[in-house]
Amino acid sequence: MKIALAQLNYHIGNFEFNTAQMIRAIEQARTEGADLVVFAELSVCGYPPRDLLEMDNFIEQCEVAAQQIAKACTDIACIIGLPTRNPEIKGKDLFNSAYFIEDGLVKAQVNKALLPNYDVFDEYRYFEPSLSSSCIDFKGFKIALTICEDLWNVNDNPLYVSEPMEQLSKEQPDLMINIAASPFAYNHDEERLQVLGDNCRKYRLPLFYVNQVGAHTEIIFDGGSLVFDEKGDVLDEMPYFSESIRYYEFEGKAVKGLAPKSELRQTDIEQIHHALILGIRDYFQKSGFSKAILGLSGGIDSAVVCALAAEALGPENVMAVLMPSEYSTDHSIKDAMDLVNNLDCKHELIPIKAAAKTFDEMLKPVFKDLPFNIAEENIQSRSRAIVVMALSNKFGYILLNTSNKSECAVGYGTLYGDMAGAISVLGDVYKTQVFQLARYINRDREIIPVNSIVKPPSAELRPGQKDTDSLPEYEILDRILFHYIEEKKGPEAIIALGFEPALVRKIIKMVNLAEFKRYQTPPILRISPKAFGMGRRMPIVGKY
Amino acid sequence: MKIALAQLNYHIGNFEFNTAQMIRAIEQARTEGADLVVFAELSVCGYPPRDLLEMDNFIEQCEVAAQQIAKACTDIACIIGLPTRNPEIKGKDLFNSAYFIEDGLVKAQVNKALLPNYDVFDEYRYFEPSLSSSCIDFKGFKIALTICEDLWNVNDNPLYVSEPMEQLSKEQPDLMINIAASPFAYNHDEERLQVLGDNCRKYRLPLFYVNQVGAHTEIIFDGGSLVFDEKGDVLDEMPYFSESIRYYEFEGKAVKGLAPKSELRQTDIEQIHHALILGIRDYFQKSGFSKAILGLSGGIDSAVVCALAAEALGPENVMAVLMPSEYSTDHSIKDAMDLVNNLDCKHELIPIKAAAKTFDEMLKPVFKDLPFNIAEENIQSRSRAIVVMALSNKFGYILLNTSNKSECAVGYGTLYGDMAGAISVLGDVYKTQVFQLARYINRDREIIPVNSIVKPPSAELRPGQKDTDSLPEYEILDRILFHYIEEKKGPEAIIALGFEPALVRKIIKMVNLAEFKRYQTPPILRISPKAFGMGRRMPIVGKY
Repeated sequence: MKIALAQLNYHIGNFEFNTAQMIRAIEQARTEGADLVVFAELSVCGYPPRDLLEMDNFIEQCEVAAQQIAKACTDIACIIGLPTRNPEIKGKDLFNSAYFIEDGLVKAQVNKALLPNYDVFDEYRYFEPSLSSSCIDFKGFKIALTICEDLWNVNDNPLYVSEPMEQLSKEQPDLMINIAASPFAYNHDEERLQVLGDNCRKYRLPLFYVNQVGAHTEIIFDGGSLVFDEKGDVLDEMPYFSESIRYYEFEGKAVKGLAPKSELRQTDIEQIHHALILGIRDYFQKSGFSKAILGLSGGIDSAVVCALAAEALGPENVMAVLMPSEYSTDHSIKDAMDLVNNLDCKHELIPIKAAAKTFDEMLKPVFKDLPFNIAEENIQSRSRAIVVMALSNKFGYILLNTSNKSECAVGYGTLYGDMAGAISVLGDVYKTQVFQLARYINRDREIIPVNSIVKPPSAELRPGQKDTDSLPEYEILDRILFHYIEEKKGPEAIIALGFEPALVRKIIKMVNLAEFKRYQTPPILRISPKAFGMGRRMPIVGKY
Repeated sequence: MKIALAQLNYHIGNFEFNTAQMIRAIEQARTEGADLVVFAELSVCGYPPRDLLEMDNFIEQCEVAAQQIAKACTDIACIIGLPTRNPEIKGKDLFNSAYFIEDGLVKAQVNKALLPNYDVFDEYRYFEPSLSSSCIDFKGFKIALTICEDLWNVNDNPLYVSEPMEQLSKEQPDLMINIAASPFAYNHDEERLQVLGDNCRKYRLPLFYVNQVGAHTEIIFDGGSLVFDEKGDVLDEMPYFSESIRYYEFEGKAVKGLAPKSELRQTDIEQIHHALILGIRDYFQKSGFSKAILGLSGGIDSAVVCALAAEALGPENVMAVLMPSEYSTDHSIKDAMDLVNNLDCKHELIPIKAAAKTFDEMLKPVFKDLPFNIAEENIQSRSRAIVVMALSNKFGYILLNTSNKSECAVGYGTLYGDMAGAISVLGDVYKTQVFQLARYINRDREIIPVNSIVKPPSAELRPGQKDTDSLPEYEILDRILFHYIEEKKGPEAIIALGFEPALVRKIIKMVNLAEFKRYQTPPILRISPKAFGMGRRMPIVGKY
């Protein structure tokens, strides 16, 4: 049996596009002599469709698309993913399903049993878990077909009380196929290898695993579909962050002609770099936009975003706007211009001093002689937002947000000012990781000016301001934040790791108090196991 | 047996406050000779605690607080709600539980079986559903204790495959007690009476139902705790939108001295009015703020928000800022000033013409002679946001957003401009409902100037602009929006109701394209069964 794994980039709700590319893949696989093409979870509609699943006409369109794919699927079989209606009156109205299609007809249906409902996942919001499943017979083989999370209950503290493979294994299948929509996080590829390999070892079966690739606003699928032997060794690892179709000959109980291999893992920073570029590119392509705009301060965050955008969209599609205030230093403008020249992107220079002065005058009758404080600082940041948004409105640019995760965490940013943007590129990247990204971007030549990397970070909203005036060194800050946000440790547990108690309490309080700001920030490209946004849902009004 | 129902206003994560007021209620009930005090679901920690539930130290604090309450609970019993740890290795780590406390000890624990995971609810994100339960014996009575959703599976298309009361009813209980955290929507009180009454009729049992009261950012609990007889008739209905403790004598199988009553239901608009005032008041009180600011345009939306804020916080705590542009009409300023005078709130007049002119000049080298368009319109709206946010930053005011649901739906608003604010007061109130609210506010005397109500709505961002230039009449628009948003009907289904096909498609497209704007709007006080925000989760990048 020749199996094709189709690792494609879907578009949520774009049935025409998804169906067309799936049919193209079926046709190509047929030409290559494949017997079976395997597509990813919810491939028909894209993942995550979220509350579109609650609309009847969306579910109808999924079924219509599935029938179109089935019609094209002759002289070959395929496995596709889609939501289907639960025929039982009791329970939720939908299943997260896979269709096994052969000779133009849906021959079997498998429903997902384990529904992830943590972090960015909300599957139990829509789907009824399947309570039973059976293997699929095809070409003399018995296939144990499962959907993504169905294989993820093998650890020591299982989240679910059942494990669908237990039931399927009783039928003595020849192989496992798992169709997935498993989002990227920089530590996820290793966890995935471990969990999937554990299944192979536990059930002594080879596994074909197909993931989606492509970004859907904040969620980035990294592809990296996998083939395992029955010992849990990796036989093939498909490309990360790009589409691919590969073919495998399965004979007896084994994949023909492939030996276990251990690929060199990409570093976290390499993976993050690829993920962010895919995230930017797909946000624009799938929204129908091509041109980005951002404020370029001369600092490292906006420099890194500018470089990533230039790589994702082409430098000719990136407009960098330099908006010095009266507190901006000369080197900031030089650093920003060096970057523009290194990247060959477009730029405008629009000083904001006049705007700040006008607002000061407008507010003088109310502010009287009250001292300069955060009000005047924020006026500058918000005046910049007005300028870039005006250019966006006039010329159709999409504003990229340049805040990093450390800033988002502690609320070191101005709502409706530098926190503005359509999509946040670095909102899940800690400042210390931004420095690593900058060095990675400079791996072959100096793109990010070295001065942007080595100078002390500053918002430049008052004379001589430095980030460290109100924050600890980022090396310390980011470690405390990681323990609190990613690891969900409380203050006592973090203090017990050796951090200064007062500092830990101050930082945690800052994180909690900034919840109202984060609520209004743009969606954030997710690259970590715990990103701000849909994956971290905190009360705004509370005491904690 | 004398039962006290304690309908209290909790504060999420504020264990000190919640525990103290629960202990006070226990002491008061003891003085009144009560045998049992019943508190609401998750009363110990407040509802919804969201991802705080994922932090170990939060769960520990819940248990510590429960033990403090238990210690105070002597010579009386009580029922409290809190998250507890699931002792089983398999399944999620927590239960949503009720403790039955007697003589200072936790004598019984009931875990919630049906976990709502739709709309604003995410309970399956945290909790393992209980699979079994048993009645509680107290003072010779057998109590069937359930938690909120546990009683909500009695309709024709049940969301869950099980019904916990089926199991409990086998023990032949004498009464049902249900502890709830059931959020307000203007149609929810009638649904609640129906569903709870259906349980009484089905199991032929009386029911004591305790709800929370109070607002937690967007979620508003309306109280309205209920006592039913075994025929499903209402014997008592506790106050809506305010705290209360009431006592009931239960003898044999009946509540003593109470006859079925049918209260006059409040109209939807009355309920919405109360809910919004509670929503504003609790947002401020629970955040530790007292002073609100808003931009007052002379139009109806900001007038209604200003009146609601004055009632919630006191007029002396409301700062209305009049910010005319060169396109503002004279009557707008007069209408705004009339409102300020009617309410006796504070005000400032800060024209924004100078800011708009300065930005025009700053952008002239780039904009050149391109015609006035949405870029210039938005500059005005965003300049106003800078002014109110500067006042907010300087004086500690909290900005109230004044956008209504119709605008939010179609994206008729400026991000970082009039869409700014800490909390959106009218974001779940359609424009046609805003008019009703205005008339209700004027029920005794003219508070909202009649001219603000009768004049054609306009953003006044260019000469002679009217909302109807780009939108249909609100009577039509709101009906189409209701079918799409609340009823989740697709375009064909809405067109089939008799609306103009091109208009329906245009409106739906506007709603979908505004998803990126809504992502960045403030939290919205929820008063309908389908509010924007956490209850409606749509993809941003997609095609639908």
